[in-house]
Amino acid sequence: MKTTVIGLGLIGGSIAIDLRKAGIATSLVGVDRNSDHAAKAIELGIVDEIDLTDNALQTADLIIVAIPVNAMCQLLPSILDQIKADAVVIDAGSTKNLICKAVATHAKRDQFVAAHPIAGTENSGPTAAFSGLFRGKTNIVCEREKSAPQALALTLKVFEALGMNTIFMESDEHDKHVAYVSHLSHVSSFLLGQTVLDIEKDEKNIFALAGSGFASTVRLAKSSPEMWAPIFEQNLDYLSQALQEYIMHLQRFHYHLLKRDTTELHRIMSKANEIRRVLEGIELKTKNQHQTQPAG
Amino acid sequence: MKTTVIGLGLIGGSIAIDLRKAGIATSLVGVDRNSDHAAKAIELGIVDEIDLTDNALQTADLIIVAIPVNAMCQLLPSILDQIKADAVVIDAGSTKNLICKAVATHAKRDQFVAAHPIAGTENSGPTAAFSGLFRGKTNIVCEREKSAPQALALTLKVFEALGMNTIFMESDEHDKHVAYVSHLSHVSSFLLGQTVLDIEKDEKNIFALAGSGFASTVRLAKSSPEMWAPIFEQNLDYLSQALQEYIMHLQRFHYHLLKRDTTELHRIMSKANEIRRVLEGIELKTKNQHQTQPAG
Repeated sequence: MKTTVIGLGLIGGSIAIDLRKAGIATSLVGVDRNSDHAAKAIELGIVDEIDLTDNALQTADLIIVAIPVNAMCQLLPSILDQIKADAVVIDAGSTKNLICKAVATHAKRDQFVAAHPIAGTENSGPTAAFSGLFRGKTNIVCEREKSAPQALALTLKVFEALGMNTIFMESDEHDKHVAYVSHLSHVSSFLLGQTVLDIEKDEKNIFALAGSGFASTVRLAKSSPEMWAPIFEQNLDYLSQALQEYIMHLQRFHYHLLKRDTTELHRIMSKANEIRRVLEGIELKTKNQHQTQPAG
Repeated sequence: MKTTVIGLGLIGGSIAIDLRKAGIATSLVGVDRNSDHAAKAIELGIVDEIDLTDNALQTADLIIVAIPVNAMCQLLPSILDQIKADAVVIDAGSTKNLICKAVATHAKRDQFVAAHPIAGTENSGPTAAFSGLFRGKTNIVCEREKSAPQALALTLKVFEALGMNTIFMESDEHDKHVAYVSHLSHVSSFLLGQTVLDIEKDEKNIFALAGSGFASTVRLAKSSPEMWAPIFEQNLDYLSQALQEYIMHLQRFHYHLLKRDTTELHRIMSKANEIRRVLEGIELKTKNQHQTQPAG
């Protein structure tokens, strides 16, 4: 299948690698306005060629779009304008509401599938891409009823080839959930990094202490601002709710700490401990409860 | 060397395993008031015997104390009361101010070394203990001038056997640094866990999204409340400062988010990105700058 990948970063690059491996992508055209990323993707063999002309869109059977979500909203309508009658466009954006709205009334809306393969690392660019990034993880498809059955079927085949389990949600429901579980984690990590860096100006030794768990808690603070600033803005309403709730919990904890209310601190931490059970149950849960088949 | 380990959890157990491996501990006596932990430590071969009598203190050459920091303050004076004239007691507590104060005027203060080997996982108990937990990490010794030279020398030998780099700090300086880098990370993670669990009551699907980085950010929320509640209380002043500063940064971020001030959000995240450079420099930095020799 003639495949074009727009955006040759961690996500686009990793999808390209595994689609070639699975035999789904028989030829791979890359599109990236960052010429260093484009050259690197060729050098690493992630794509066969770079083509920045309309040809990359007009001749492809499958187009994967993995670019920042603000660029996604701007470009998706003109991408759909160009594609062949039987081509399928899949996005990999971390928000879904505004992306779905951007193409809602497009004549070729049914050739588009709104997806969010949930995986990543704190690294970015084609050198960060690797085979297996998505294996065992969850992919979310939104507004399934607006995509043609054959577009959905190809999409499921694509994410199955990546080793993912696909579940379905409304785009609004998706954005709410990722605000709490993904976007809030990133904000909490970015600001933890900033808080500690602020102090480190005067206190050089502090970083000898990173073996304490700090390194893993602050890992997401290394993430790309170019990717995350647009995500936070597109998901402003739900992220704002989540952030306010997080701040409220921190303040309440702080209050009980100042009161030296050990019983309450203990209760809060014991409750938070339940996350262990929940996280350990994820794999089983997603496999048993969420696997569903596309409509139509 | 006849060694007694008081507290057979992750820290005490892991120290015991590697001190035996290094040939420093030729016999190992374990002390733990949790009889399940004691039995498990015997079963796993972490210690040779359990001895809850004063004999465990009176006959040992080296005593490692790895129990919650509130129990540490209570027990250390009576441990020192019992020991031989040439024995050395090393604690492994995560706070140092109150622990040092608890033994400040003890007649055998110079046989005690206040240490904090900075390593750990989110797991606890003897089954969580493993060889290599401390390798390549930093150990902090406080109030070095209050320990006898031979006690300090043995302590350095012990932590070198664990593969650690020892640095020296005043206990107050230690508590301030760990408040920001270690204790704040734990609070941020506990409350992130609580925030997301609160939402999950109504929203079952949310945990399919944990592949997004949530799992690593929330990892420390699995930590033991029995261990952490006393740490937070003992380090209340500095932790309160750190927590207030973190909340302030979160609120400022929230404000810029609500204003859709992309430039400022971008600036904050780019600044937080510097954590990558700092974390990558840790190993080099600690090896080059901080390695020092004991006084005396």
